[in-house]
Amino acid sequence: MTQEDHDGGADGAGRLAALGPADRLRALATVREGKCFTLGTEVFGRAPAPADPARPTQRHFVYRDWSHYQKGTVRPLPGGVASVDDGVLLNCHGGSHLDALGHVIAEGTITGGVPASSTIGGLQHADVAAIARLGVVCRGVLVDLCRQAGGEPLGRDHEVTLGEIDSCLRAAGVNAEPGDMLLLRTGSILRYSREGDEEFFRNYSEPGLTRGDALLEWVDAHQILGVGTDTLANELPRNPRTGEEYPLHRYLLRDRGLQFHEGLWLEDLAADSAADGRYVGLYVASPLKMVGASGSPVNPLFLK
Amino acid sequence: MTQEDHDGGADGAGRLAALGPADRLRALATVREGKCFTLGTEVFGRAPAPADPARPTQRHFVYRDWSHYQKGTVRPLPGGVASVDDGVLLNCHGGSHLDALGHVIAEGTITGGVPASSTIGGLQHADVAAIARLGVVCRGVLVDLCRQAGGEPLGRDHEVTLGEIDSCLRAAGVNAEPGDMLLLRTGSILRYSREGDEEFFRNYSEPGLTRGDALLEWVDAHQILGVGTDTLANELPRNPRTGEEYPLHRYLLRDRGLQFHEGLWLEDLAADSAADGRYVGLYVASPLKMVGASGSPVNPLFLK
Amino acid sequence: MTQEDHDGGADGAGRLAALGPADRLRALATVREGKCFTLGTEVFGRAPAPADPARPTQRHFVYRDWSHYQKGTVRPLPGGVASVDDGVLLNCHGGSHLDALGHVIAEGTITGGVPASSTIGGLQHADVAAIARLGVVCRGVLVDLCRQAGGEPLGRDHEVTLGEIDSCLRAAGVNAEPGDMLLLRTGSILRYSREGDEEFFRNYSEPGLTRGDALLEWVDAHQILGVGTDTLANELPRNPRTGEEYPLHRYLLRDRGLQFHEGLWLEDLAADSAADGRYVGLYVASPLKMVGASGSPVNPLFLK
Amino acid sequence: MTQEDHDGGADGAGRLAALGPADRLRALATVREGKCFTLGTEVFGRAPAPADPARPTQRHFVYRDWSHYQKGTVRPLPGGVASVDDGVLLNCHGGSHLDALGHVIAEGTITGGVPASSTIGGLQHADVAAIARLGVVCRGVLVDLCRQAGGEPLGRDHEVTLGEIDSCLRAAGVNAEPGDMLLLRTGSILRYSREGDEEFFRNYSEPGLTRGDALLEWVDAHQILGVGTDTLANELPRNPRTGEEYPLHRYLLRDRGLQFHEGLWLEDLAADSAADGRYVGLYVASPLKMVGASGSPVNPLFLK
Repeated sequence: MTQEDHDGGADGAGRLAALGPADRLRALATVREGKCFTLGTEVFGRAPAPADPARPTQRHFVYRDWSHYQKGTVRPLPGGVASVDDGVLLNCHGGSHLDALGHVIAEGTITGGVPASSTIGGLQHADVAAIARLGVVCRGVLVDLCRQAGGEPLGRDHEVTLGEIDSCLRAAGVNAEPGDMLLLRTGSILRYSREGDEEFFRNYSEPGLTRGDALLEWVDAHQILGVGTDTLANELPRNPRTGEEYPLHRYLLRDRGLQFHEGLWLEDLAADSAADGRYVGLYVASPLKMVGASGSPVNPLFLK
Repeated sequence: MTQEDHDGGADGAGRLAALGPADRLRALATVREGKCFTLGTEVFGRAPAPADPARPTQRHFVYRDWSHYQKGTVRPLPGGVASVDDGVLLNCHGGSHLDALGHVIAEGTITGGVPASSTIGGLQHADVAAIARLGVVCRGVLVDLCRQAGGEPLGRDHEVTLGEIDSCLRAAGVNAEPGDMLLLRTGSILRYSREGDEEFFRNYSEPGLTRGDALLEWVDAHQILGVGTDTLANELPRNPRTGEEYPLHRYLLRDRGLQFHEGLWLEDLAADSAADGRYVGLYVASPLKMVGASGSPVNPLFLK
Repeated sequence: MTQEDHDGGADGAGRLAALGPADRLRALATVREGKCFTLGTEVFGRAPAPADPARPTQRHFVYRDWSHYQKGTVRPLPGGVASVDDGVLLNCHGGSHLDALGHVIAEGTITGGVPASSTIGGLQHADVAAIARLGVVCRGVLVDLCRQAGGEPLGRDHEVTLGEIDSCLRAAGVNAEPGDMLLLRTGSILRYSREGDEEFFRNYSEPGLTRGDALLEWVDAHQILGVGTDTLANELPRNPRTGEEYPLHRYLLRDRGLQFHEGLWLEDLAADSAADGRYVGLYVASPLKMVGASGSPVNPLFLK
Repeated sequence: MTQEDHDGGADGAGRLAALGPADRLRALATVREGKCFTLGTEVFGRAPAPADPARPTQRHFVYRDWSHYQKGTVRPLPGGVASVDDGVLLNCHGGSHLDALGHVIAEGTITGGVPASSTIGGLQHADVAAIARLGVVCRGVLVDLCRQAGGEPLGRDHEVTLGEIDSCLRAAGVNAEPGDMLLLRTGSILRYSREGDEEFFRNYSEPGLTRGDALLEWVDAHQILGVGTDTLANELPRNPRTGEEYPLHRYLLRDRGLQFHEGLWLEDLAADSAADGRYVGLYVASPLKMVGASGSPVNPLFLK
């Protein structure tokens, strides 16, 4: 598939495809001071964020560093330039990342009623490249649930309600508008840093929204573009009323084409917003144009 | 290394660290219509861009797709949700990417005089995370050398001169300003698509700038933030006068801390700019916060 | 799947499963002097053997070496021990390797009429572990076609005939016996070292056997255990009479359960056999017990 | 490095290089019935053996299976042959494996006094290919310490003594001979299957030999070729008297050039030996000729 010869991005990008130049200008207009926050968590090193233990270890492979020159197996180029070269093994859904719409299957189809067999060996439709060809540039709204709860992480089984979101928005003096990306800070990432891997993943759950008629209606009425959180699941993993697991991945991402941005680092942005009282800004996330992939790591920006 | 506990990003980000809120506001102010171009080349698939044959093949690994559910080795979750899971092996300097300042060594040191031994086993200083913690948000200027040459790719050994850049800028009615990212379109990526792998890498060279006193003075006088191109090398690989190889990686990136963004897809942006006559816009590149890595794939955005 | 809890190896090992203690004793009895030859080609480095360009680059990743200790990021253990640690990305069908019986599908089934859907996400039946639980220990017979052709590599489109094999065996004074592994030296690996990658893979073909009634009857009449060669394909890739590609992978491996050992280094063994006139010996190949894999790299031994 | 153009294998193979044809004939002569046991643990699947949690997850990547043909993205070849293709990410010291002599560094040198800087970017000396070019073919002796202890795994901090080995050998009616590979069954792998990952690696230790003058003298006096065990460490990780860690990797492997074969599956062999009273046989291990690697996975064979 070449840059020009792809199956139309609009189908696979969901609500993002409906975003137009006017929406981007509206989002740009929210920036007042030019502050910039980066919302990706660190990769490798002592990362501050949890990693799903069922996935392979993400890994940095150093192909060439200074020790190779010291040893003499590689020589600097004429003129004296030497360089470091490396590669990485990353999970498409590891660390801060966003989901392609084709990531989720229910009743034998992905988004748009496309047969699930289209995912075999890599997504033929609605892959992450469909989003990456457009870029996510929209208004972002920080919904600081953790702060509202006194700065303590929400409980691992806590269901975030529309009422709680509404209360946060009201305190922030913000209305949800069409094309907004909602960034929910639950504090789950803080709980992880306190508990460590073993405890965090024992009987794993994270706070979040879950399916309910009111939520779906609200999301439609406000024409929300997507939801980002500081959790791995981006929703309460198990609906306490129905027992269904990850239902919002089905009803919001697959059925409605919302953006799902997961595992975000919202701490610095939250501190700044608490200080200046401004919870809206320009949100930019640009996944890699990985043809066939069901997600992409990202390091989103939030400008205020 | 945790999100808070890192060796100060400013040292490792070069000129980017000097960019402030006012620079970002100036860049944002260039956007008039809200058009958005994505400058990353496609990864995997039949990518339209060359890949250095000395590096490992980039690879998409599908961990789980619909065929696993059909076979019955995996079952949908309670409620019916199934999902695709995957991972990738990427080169830090593969496809569209940006270089960490610590990528380049000369005379035993990287940027800032830090000993090259700091690169061993991964960059301790000036890794790509230093850039990723800030994000690259600046004014972008498209310098369409290929169009100026009649739409034909510049020759593989063509040295791009200051005069040619100046002529492009004048035709576009743009002045280079402090904090600008220059995006040079040479057409090399078009030549690749015509020639194919074997021919392109036989006696490999690409058109580009190379070291000269005038260039270095100009870059300093105009306080250029960085240079991006549609080439792998981001410069003429071999200086025809001195024989030195990749000298700009030393004199611009290592010594002066300029951003180097390589292998960009500038075709769509160039077509639009030729049509509306506007060659400036908001440029956003957000690498992954990969601790220790010497580069990161990116999919930069250009908003007009 | 645990060491004890597997789907019966016998089904997935084909003719190997019928080999018993008496066959192994017969094979052991061929060893007279105790010479030992290793038949694996080198992996990494400047390997003397071709690698299918459609597969990912095989790669050695050094996790930790002495430079890490020099830099001080790792310290020797109490008592002073330091160590090197590393990993590898290997293809199951890269370099010297053997095929699992489930590697090949025809008419919707693998060996034994098992549905091909059993291969999805990794082989549930007839994986390489089925062979690895038994180990290949048998009589090996070197059939030196290259030497018979005057030491020159057979042509890339040369069809090896039963007559040629028979002539080699007669010259060697050997009869094919039940349970024998035939090792065909075509010289293809020598041709590769002369031609290099580009030339070797341009209009790729390699000399070898291909399907014919006489061959299948001969293989059955002599109860041949398997075929190994110094080629990637282990057979003439395209049958010149029928146009079918890789038919022996179907008729010998899938249908009859023969061992296929590919890309072997037979040069040292051939030189020794030419010198002492002995072309039989003990052949040992022990693939890794990789559950679900369709092949495994091996370094077979030949003892005379 | 080509098959012929390597730095002499003898240096890097230690005691193995001294093994000659006569030793191999002696080993072959121990086989009476033709029984064959495979001593590798399973890789992937629900492996019965522990994996060092500090290393990357070993991984099976399926490049192509039947689902790709069902989807139609790949078509069978002319004649109808389809095939499965895959690759693996393996650790050189993961699962059943053997150590290259250059794996261990002490006082700035590896085996033979070669500077440790030779390990940078991959072993230039004493890599696993040095062993792989020879192949390990010798007499194997099962020392069933676990059975002697009543069938219960030895304690995790248990120091195996020369007395215990001697007692096992005497009960088995075997004398240690020059060129023998000793296979110590401690039962650690059974303990792992009972405890599971979390418990096994909490305050990790495993039973084994440790450094003592008597042991070193005994190993020299009997000209032992090497030691294999059913443990990850192949020795008591911490010497209780001196506090030094992994001292045998220094004094036996690095200084004396002994073979170290780790993580072996000795259960089936042990059961058979208990039944027929025969603890000696032909031991064959054939690592991959991976140039520069510090170890290789193996699936050793034991023939009785």
